[in-house]
Amino acid sequence: MKKENMAMLCDFYEFTMSNGFFKNGFYKRSVYFDVFFRKVPDNGGFAIAAGLEQVIDYIRELHFDDEDIEYLRSKGIFDEEFLAYLKGFKFSGDIYAVPEGTPVFPNEPIMTVKAPAIEAQLIETFVLLTLNHQTLIATKANRIVRAAQGRAVLEFGSRRAQGASGAILGARAAYIGGCRGTACTITDELYGVPAGGTMAHSWVQMFDSEYDAFKTYCELYPDNPTLLVDTYNTLKSGIPNAIKVFKEVLLPQGRTKCAIRLDSGDISYLSKKARKMLDDAGLTECKITASNALDEKLIRDLMMQGAQVDTFGVGERLITSSSSPVFGGVYKLVAVENANGDIEPKIKVSENTAKITNPHFKKLYRYYDRESGKALADELCVYDESVDDSKPHTIFDPNATWKTKTLTDFTARELLVKVFENGECVYDCPSIDEIAEYCRGQLDLLWDEVKRFENPHDYYVDLSKKLYEIKSILLSVHGL
Amino acid sequence: MKKENMAMLCDFYEFTMSNGFFKNGFYKRSVYFDVFFRKVPDNGGFAIAAGLEQVIDYIRELHFDDEDIEYLRSKGIFDEEFLAYLKGFKFSGDIYAVPEGTPVFPNEPIMTVKAPAIEAQLIETFVLLTLNHQTLIATKANRIVRAAQGRAVLEFGSRRAQGASGAILGARAAYIGGCRGTACTITDELYGVPAGGTMAHSWVQMFDSEYDAFKTYCELYPDNPTLLVDTYNTLKSGIPNAIKVFKEVLLPQGRTKCAIRLDSGDISYLSKKARKMLDDAGLTECKITASNALDEKLIRDLMMQGAQVDTFGVGERLITSSSSPVFGGVYKLVAVENANGDIEPKIKVSENTAKITNPHFKKLYRYYDRESGKALADELCVYDESVDDSKPHTIFDPNATWKTKTLTDFTARELLVKVFENGECVYDCPSIDEIAEYCRGQLDLLWDEVKRFENPHDYYVDLSKKLYEIKSILLSVHGL
Repeated sequence: MKKENMAMLCDFYEFTMSNGFFKNGFYKRSVYFDVFFRKVPDNGGFAIAAGLEQVIDYIRELHFDDEDIEYLRSKGIFDEEFLAYLKGFKFSGDIYAVPEGTPVFPNEPIMTVKAPAIEAQLIETFVLLTLNHQTLIATKANRIVRAAQGRAVLEFGSRRAQGASGAILGARAAYIGGCRGTACTITDELYGVPAGGTMAHSWVQMFDSEYDAFKTYCELYPDNPTLLVDTYNTLKSGIPNAIKVFKEVLLPQGRTKCAIRLDSGDISYLSKKARKMLDDAGLTECKITASNALDEKLIRDLMMQGAQVDTFGVGERLITSSSSPVFGGVYKLVAVENANGDIEPKIKVSENTAKITNPHFKKLYRYYDRESGKALADELCVYDESVDDSKPHTIFDPNATWKTKTLTDFTARELLVKVFENGECVYDCPSIDEIAEYCRGQLDLLWDEVKRFENPHDYYVDLSKKLYEIKSILLSVHGL
Repeated sequence: MKKENMAMLCDFYEFTMSNGFFKNGFYKRSVYFDVFFRKVPDNGGFAIAAGLEQVIDYIRELHFDDEDIEYLRSKGIFDEEFLAYLKGFKFSGDIYAVPEGTPVFPNEPIMTVKAPAIEAQLIETFVLLTLNHQTLIATKANRIVRAAQGRAVLEFGSRRAQGASGAILGARAAYIGGCRGTACTITDELYGVPAGGTMAHSWVQMFDSEYDAFKTYCELYPDNPTLLVDTYNTLKSGIPNAIKVFKEVLLPQGRTKCAIRLDSGDISYLSKKARKMLDDAGLTECKITASNALDEKLIRDLMMQGAQVDTFGVGERLITSSSSPVFGGVYKLVAVENANGDIEPKIKVSENTAKITNPHFKKLYRYYDRESGKALADELCVYDESVDDSKPHTIFDPNATWKTKTLTDFTARELLVKVFENGECVYDCPSIDEIAEYCRGQLDLLWDEVKRFENPHDYYVDLSKKLYEIKSILLSVHGL
């Protein structure tokens, strides 16, 4: 199996365009691209940025091997000088990004790339797919975690993921979004997301009886074993056998930590019955884990009905974000450096006004209320503007310019941090636990109204006056 | 970045179970697992099996590195003897599978693994995720290809894929399902799926005018260039500029092959307008490519409305199968070898009757009508049965046993072929073009009724009398 070089995970048109930029000299010009999205999956109020660490790894490793060059040569359309350039290719640009775990909103840059045209173009596909995928899963995981209202959520979906990296990095993103762990072993080994798991139905089927299967398991793993109780009949056989084995094996050792797992049937009904059977047997510390086609809607309903579930194991509906499986991040040219070194803003117009881009090299500010600590609004500014939060600051809605608001007692935070400078990584990636904790902290700063599942409040993402005027001029130039 | 060893892409419970099987001696017993699914995505009539080549690559490479053993040791729950066993681990079993590109139906094995218990258990997650992912995408791609009624469909979705392997292997699966090519360069380099592409909006934006951008491109790639015409205004600027450039650059060279691409707006309206404008300009050979949120439903509607599209570029809705993004293949124990070497069938019962498994080590036959060539039904038989297609053969519906049918003028084909024997691969993987062609041929053998999008005919998957009786006995033993 040939080792996959991610430099070639690239839409073919990046190469045809780059070959053109090489021939006409544009490759020397710096360009600015923004990554942003237009819509939150599941019509949610915000997304959670994730995937930056993998983008950094990719940029650091980025190069073209001889076999890649040979492959491109075989297409018969690329200049030899361009191929020689690719052989020595190294990313030399600047990248700015919001830290992983940051809540983000439509139409604001979550990454800005400034690089010579070819370099900026060739990384488009991988950058987008990485940020799109992990942001999608972190966002979905957080919906599910919010529905569980403090009960633990574990990621169980590897077998239904869309490919290996869907499983591995999906589990990483789910942890950023608030899951407490995963079933995916390699995500623990590579990224430190705690992995766990106990038994499948096949374990129970391998033994002559369910009782034997449970007893053997508890003797092997007496430290907090979880028994899967639905292989034959949950209430008539599974739970009674589990209770018997817990009493025979664990209690004599003075152990009380244990759990059962429900993986079929009605979780609300079965968990309440199970809780009563366990409590009646004195196993009040025995926890109940539930899995089977769960998502935030079912968990919300189960919680409303008082289901006695301590831990939710969530599989396919999390790892594919099945109700909304696409995160639509795009990579759009927002400025180019012209011949005399000035930054010239660019716009992509569209008959669909929602698809018109915010031009220029920008800063992204988030404003927080000093008293409550809550996030009030975000504002996009031109790169050379700065906001002084010691003075009142007036913002306005770019879609309804008469709606203004003057912020007084607030703090301003720049969200885009420098990750690469002249091709060198200047950012220390936080640990996965630091990212998850940062995410929890940032979510506490959002109003509940923004976190609602149905019809959440629209958080404001405003444009500075200067940026608004530049955009208006560009739109008028293009006749719209 | 640590190289990812796919042996560890494994649910953690496979290790806890395997450690148990090692300790109690079960690891010496051969077991049989089936991979099958219960429901076709999008309520379709069939799925297209894909992913076998990657399962084969995985099994061949399967081993545990020192760092994997060290990681497992750090968990503090695994026996040293088990860890020593893993260090020398090599797959030694047999695997049977339906060839890639085969149309497959619910509740029939698409793969059967016979191996010592630990070996069969440890491969579960990777085998499932690989077959689930690629079968999902091949199946979805074929729906889209069927909707396009002979017009070419290209896979354009890498940037919205769920991770790198989602993009790379998704493009491979899409080609099996009937796409003519992909935008994903690495899938061409690694798997031979033809990649292509021309320009993004950023190409047009880099130039002082759309005309300059088009002219430069056509001069660079005069051999069948495709120009993206919607950066500013499709009808007023994009198409007129494209026509001008084609006439100025291509026609004087005697070239007539060219194309435009529509990536926004109403494809039906714009493609008809574009066709007329191109024809009026004498560019009757200029093709029209359309992209932008396409799937089989929109393409079916566009075709119905006479849209003048020659090639459909399909992105996120294909690469994630967004309307039905999970393929629910499962891996279930169906038999174990007992102490005296006999194969003992096993069943997993469930209160949900649809989740009851078909027990035993099985053969899968497909029966074809000799006259029409069409597939009539599939039948699951016990491994030691064989069907003689020179004699009449009566099959019956296992869900309605009074419904019988006697096949007379038919041919029988065994669908599961041996892929591994005693751990050695005994199967020559066909080329990707052979797989795609085999798939097209097999689809021709399905009745149109099975291929309908809405409410397709249920293709029969029957059980042999012997298998039906074994299943009935096992069900009665478990009190159902």
